[in-house]
Amino acid sequence: MSGGETELVQYFAAKGKLNPAKFPIGIGDDMAEVKLPSGGSVLITTDMLLDGVHFDTKKATLEQIGYKSMAASLSDCAAMATIPLAAVVSVALPRNFGAGRLKRLHKGILIAAKKYNCPLVGGDMTSWTKPLAISVSMLSVPGKTKPIKRSTAKIGDAICVTGTLGGSIFKKHLEFEPRLKESLAIAKAGANSMMDISDGLSSDLNHICRLSRKGAIVEADKIPVSRNAGGLNAALNDGEDFELLFTMPQKKFERLKKQWRFKVKLTAVGKITGGRAVKIKMPNGKIIDLKPGGYDHLATNE
Amino acid sequence: MSGGETELVQYFAAKGKLNPAKFPIGIGDDMAEVKLPSGGSVLITTDMLLDGVHFDTKKATLEQIGYKSMAASLSDCAAMATIPLAAVVSVALPRNFGAGRLKRLHKGILIAAKKYNCPLVGGDMTSWTKPLAISVSMLSVPGKTKPIKRSTAKIGDAICVTGTLGGSIFKKHLEFEPRLKESLAIAKAGANSMMDISDGLSSDLNHICRLSRKGAIVEADKIPVSRNAGGLNAALNDGEDFELLFTMPQKKFERLKKQWRFKVKLTAVGKITGGRAVKIKMPNGKIIDLKPGGYDHLATNE
Repeated sequence: MSGGETELVQYFAAKGKLNPAKFPIGIGDDMAEVKLPSGGSVLITTDMLLDGVHFDTKKATLEQIGYKSMAASLSDCAAMATIPLAAVVSVALPRNFGAGRLKRLHKGILIAAKKYNCPLVGGDMTSWTKPLAISVSMLSVPGKTKPIKRSTAKIGDAICVTGTLGGSIFKKHLEFEPRLKESLAIAKAGANSMMDISDGLSSDLNHICRLSRKGAIVEADKIPVSRNAGGLNAALNDGEDFELLFTMPQKKFERLKKQWRFKVKLTAVGKITGGRAVKIKMPNGKIIDLKPGGYDHLATNE
Repeated sequence: MSGGETELVQYFAAKGKLNPAKFPIGIGDDMAEVKLPSGGSVLITTDMLLDGVHFDTKKATLEQIGYKSMAASLSDCAAMATIPLAAVVSVALPRNFGAGRLKRLHKGILIAAKKYNCPLVGGDMTSWTKPLAISVSMLSVPGKTKPIKRSTAKIGDAICVTGTLGGSIFKKHLEFEPRLKESLAIAKAGANSMMDISDGLSSDLNHICRLSRKGAIVEADKIPVSRNAGGLNAALNDGEDFELLFTMPQKKFERLKKQWRFKVKLTAVGKITGGRAVKIKMPNGKIIDLKPGGYDHLATNE
């Protein structure tokens, strides 16, 4: 990623080196894995959602905003092929927010909590004269496979996505379904690497390649573009798709497609390559660099 | 508590009933306890800290703000007599914040992480045109005792505090030391209930009494008032002391005081009683209600 965010994440990971025996997965993946003194491990993720950035209190209902806040973290649990366990939510409320609106926000949180079996177990309420900010942190546990990381793509892997990409802003970003069950099936079928698409396919595939020290070639014609997206560019860069991006050996992907019992479709859009270049073959046959075009929260600082 | 915050916490706890076999400690305590499928349990807490409310970016250094953000959650770990395991931090950055300032904030976080052996394992960075908001979520595990709850004070218990109270705003709130080692010793000595003083002794003792369905009588003359606090009222209501408030049988407290090897002092300030009244014996001998006078984030909505 060209922006400041990726470099900062690398800086933080280097400054705060973790003991891999205690923390097998650390800074830079969808969740961190923490080994427990009593045996076993939990994974943890945190997300901050802001009025005017991740939602708009003038356009979305508070129930939708509560739902989305939970669903974004649930999507992180899916990204690792893990099973959600519990969530905590801290909120910064505008001073005149009122108990009624807070209860509607809470209702949206509980809808997601119940639907995906991830109870809200605690929280923190604060208030200020500024807009609404919501932070969700979520715990999960590994399923039958180890958690699937971003950094373990293999040369020759098919690059695959669930669902369709782009245009999430028109509605889906508030009502998407985290791909929890799908991700467990994908992991079981032998995925080598996985993440959820939050910044956009172009940015997120670059994350997988950078962390895996691999390259990629994507075929533009194969990308499943959402009907309401504004074409290829939107599908590559819009972000907030909350679909899964994963890589697995081509043969395993063929087998997975045959036994697939979920509604959401699976599409192979390219292949992991040696080297470090991330390329896209455009509809006109030209092969060009696939640059990270998604949202970078710190790009404006550079 | 007279304000809206306590009522809302009760509402949330009632709406999202938890299975006590899976979640032995839920909404309304300093941390929630989550049983793991693999055995054992983890505890989790979350705190939101806001510019202009919990810190002032014009007065405090970013290192201090980072330290305080972690220390507030570490104090929750102490409040339950648990051992910190790992933290995640999500931040909402003002749009022009810049990488340099973010690194200083991170430095403060790492100082606390290293000092109290609680590594930063993940996070989320977002930005907006509003002031800095920081959310810390922290995991801990039980020590040699069960986690000490707020709701288990017993009639006849001495009401005890660590350190001195009041005047935190002048400096301590940015540099306090979470009472982690002290809390393990207090738990081992037989504390029945415990929490950390974040809203002020008056509010927090009312929490313990309400949740334990007990009353209390405090002696004003015994309250350890900080030298720079503005007297009794400040010691009762200022908040952000981040000292421990605990109750234990009088005899056990005497034994604890004899074997106490920490710098911070221990003081018994009153006694848990039957009934539900929380009272204070003022210096002039008059006994009056001890009303929660601490900060209520939602009181302005009432």
